[in-house]
Amino acid sequence: MRIPFEEVKATLKEILMGRNTPEPYAEEVAHVLAQNSLDGVYTHGINRFVALINSIELGSVLPTETACRVSGLGGYEIWDGRSGLGIVNARICTQRAIELAKTHGIACVSIRNSNHWLRGGTYGIMAAQAGMLGIIFTNARANMCAWGTMEHCLGNNPLVMAVPRKNGEHVIMDTSFSQYSYGKLQLAKLEGRTMPDPAGYDDEGNLSSDPTEVLRCKRLISMGKWKGSSIAMLLDLITSVSSFGYSSAAMAAMEGTDERACSQTFIIINPFALGEQEQADAIVDEALEMVLGATPVPGETVRYPGQAMLGIRKENTQLGIPVHEKVWNKILSLK
Amino acid sequence: MRIPFEEVKATLKEILMGRNTPEPYAEEVAHVLAQNSLDGVYTHGINRFVALINSIELGSVLPTETACRVSGLGGYEIWDGRSGLGIVNARICTQRAIELAKTHGIACVSIRNSNHWLRGGTYGIMAAQAGMLGIIFTNARANMCAWGTMEHCLGNNPLVMAVPRKNGEHVIMDTSFSQYSYGKLQLAKLEGRTMPDPAGYDDEGNLSSDPTEVLRCKRLISMGKWKGSSIAMLLDLITSVSSFGYSSAAMAAMEGTDERACSQTFIIINPFALGEQEQADAIVDEALEMVLGATPVPGETVRYPGQAMLGIRKENTQLGIPVHEKVWNKILSLK
Repeated sequence: MRIPFEEVKATLKEILMGRNTPEPYAEEVAHVLAQNSLDGVYTHGINRFVALINSIELGSVLPTETACRVSGLGGYEIWDGRSGLGIVNARICTQRAIELAKTHGIACVSIRNSNHWLRGGTYGIMAAQAGMLGIIFTNARANMCAWGTMEHCLGNNPLVMAVPRKNGEHVIMDTSFSQYSYGKLQLAKLEGRTMPDPAGYDDEGNLSSDPTEVLRCKRLISMGKWKGSSIAMLLDLITSVSSFGYSSAAMAAMEGTDERACSQTFIIINPFALGEQEQADAIVDEALEMVLGATPVPGETVRYPGQAMLGIRKENTQLGIPVHEKVWNKILSLK
Repeated sequence: MRIPFEEVKATLKEILMGRNTPEPYAEEVAHVLAQNSLDGVYTHGINRFVALINSIELGSVLPTETACRVSGLGGYEIWDGRSGLGIVNARICTQRAIELAKTHGIACVSIRNSNHWLRGGTYGIMAAQAGMLGIIFTNARANMCAWGTMEHCLGNNPLVMAVPRKNGEHVIMDTSFSQYSYGKLQLAKLEGRTMPDPAGYDDEGNLSSDPTEVLRCKRLISMGKWKGSSIAMLLDLITSVSSFGYSSAAMAAMEGTDERACSQTFIIINPFALGEQEQADAIVDEALEMVLGATPVPGETVRYPGQAMLGIRKENTQLGIPVHEKVWNKILSLK
């Protein structure tokens, strides 16, 4: 079924307000979640709403709290998320880093004790819309094997990078560091497909491309094997040290299974303080043309990160947001 | 054969000075190259010296020039490398970013028109030794396929991340974005091994793990397939836009085959301006212990990035730097 953006947003907002969320935060979170689904990022939009409400009911997300500034030097600030709504906190930090970059050229806001920000691309788009470059990352409770380990000891630690373009067709990358998500594995299992590459270790420590086996063993491996494992580890260390917050390991040591108290880092660079957007656009256009103009490998369609989003957004704006009936009914039952 | 560090350094320095390199730059470049080999990074130390001398003789590296500041706002500055020695320029930028981070908390120095910095880890170590976090990257002339393209349209764009520890056992990651380097493929070919994962596309666009075939077709793929391809693309865009310099595509469009005029970005965060190193050490120790204490997959040894370096450095300091006799004789012939 398809439901108009405004109806989705109003429904989510009403439910959040019914869970003690102040009106402005309920408005903001409902808008971002509906927007994520509108943009085609279904895994990090409406589909996660029930889990968010669970986290509020468990008390790992405190919907009345928001981030406050702890300390700062020039363009670098540490904030405390005070267990508030991850989306509200991450938007505060992005906006603050954008403001700081206006006067300092570059800014880094690192937040501790925050919660899941849902879709990282949300904050990359904010940076690009402000005409800024963004390098933005979060850690996660350890949910992935480091390369060569049988146990989870790294988060999949999503990384977002954003490059603005004057025409609004920004380049927005948003990737996590597992080679395949649980969502992709579940889909492959349903369709009876094996993965084209190893997705995890089995109980003997052998690499497996069988989604059923990997879903059973829950030992996801990092993308690019040892390379992605190293990058995920360093992103975790940089965000937890720069915020003096919890690492993926420290989060894993907490009681319960709900993810909370994550660390996030928002680095924003203000290039148009020192140069013209037209010149930057020419640089970006030339680089993208080389990729988009290359001969594709048979069967592949080549796109730059974020390219498909505007088309999906347009379609979903016209036709409504696609939602599984079961998911929507579950959400309505929370009213 | 093994040659003492000081002898290697003196030899390289003499040859550089014989190629019109001012004494301080010759000293610096010789020291860094010898140090890279001392640290076990043989691919980016002495073994590249002949290629560096070639670039000087070709005129793509101008050894009398060094980077100068173009413009700046707060902690963000643009520098012009003026085609100088990549190592000298990258050290100037790292040092400048460290200085800026002392007063601004975070800094970004982006340089254009520079040259190959050899080993990225060199600059990560500088950041860590100054008690700072580093996120440092360079682009490269397009030498890798984007995911799904038959032609080279991305650089392998090395990324360095550094986290300081009080005991000097810093975490230093230095990775490029091809799944396998040409060096690793050549070694596997010599030893008659296939790669454990696809390393490139063949002439029909099929993925191949055969090193002979991949070396022939020269269509290296990115690590983690589409994920590494996206990250490499964004690093290139961010460094070329923030320096208003050349992208990997623009470099590929230049005459000749020698790489020149690359863009590099040095982001430095000063965490100990806002917190105690002891607290950061505790965060890092806990995260590393989780990885190092995990059950290893049979046959794997788990290490954090940079862990092996100090041992190799100690051994090579005692026994001398291992150098292929052929390489060393070639270097001596340049005197």
